[in-house]
Amino acid sequence: MEILKVSSKSNPNSVAGALAGVLREKGNAEIQAIGAGALNQAIKSIAIARGFVAPSGLDLVCVPAFTDILIGDEEKTAIKFIVETK
Amino acid sequence: MEILKVSSKSNPNSVAGALAGVLREKGNAEIQAIGAGALNQAIKSIAIARGFVAPSGLDLVCVPAFTDILIGDEEKTAIKFIVETK
Repeated sequence: MEILKVSSKSNPNSVAGALAGVLREKGNAEIQAIGAGALNQAIKSIAIARGFVAPSGLDLVCVPAFTDILIGDEEKTAIKFIVETK
Repeated sequence: MEILKVSSKSNPNSVAGALAGVLREKGNAEIQAIGAGALNQAIKSIAIARGFVAPSGLDLVCVPAFTDILIGDEEKTAIKFIVETK
């Protein structure tokens, strides 16, 4: 599954565009975010992407889950979203 | 649909418990959050609630969307999550 990494500085519109592209091509995608700011942008991206794919008859749902990511030598808990079309 | 309002000070475990209860009873719920901190707690709650309902064979998906909320005289943009079992 293609992984999109979102930071607190990511532009939700740009992420939404990328997400819509991946979803149209592959039907699902994973978004990773670490921290409240990044999560905020990730959620906005998903809400915006719904509007991008809706005209093609696609409806997006997401499943949030915890995941551990190794950054350098440090293990951090990130949130991942599995985004799927239904 | 029952609406659960989550703040940045909400305990994700408590919200998850309430969410699981509503989902078992009614099959769906709405979570509202304003701001990155509140959103963070809301997402954690949904991830935790998945674990609460999974043993009953329920799988949770959520749909994020923007919504306008009137607080006093001020209109604020909140994020709402429609949480459904599938």
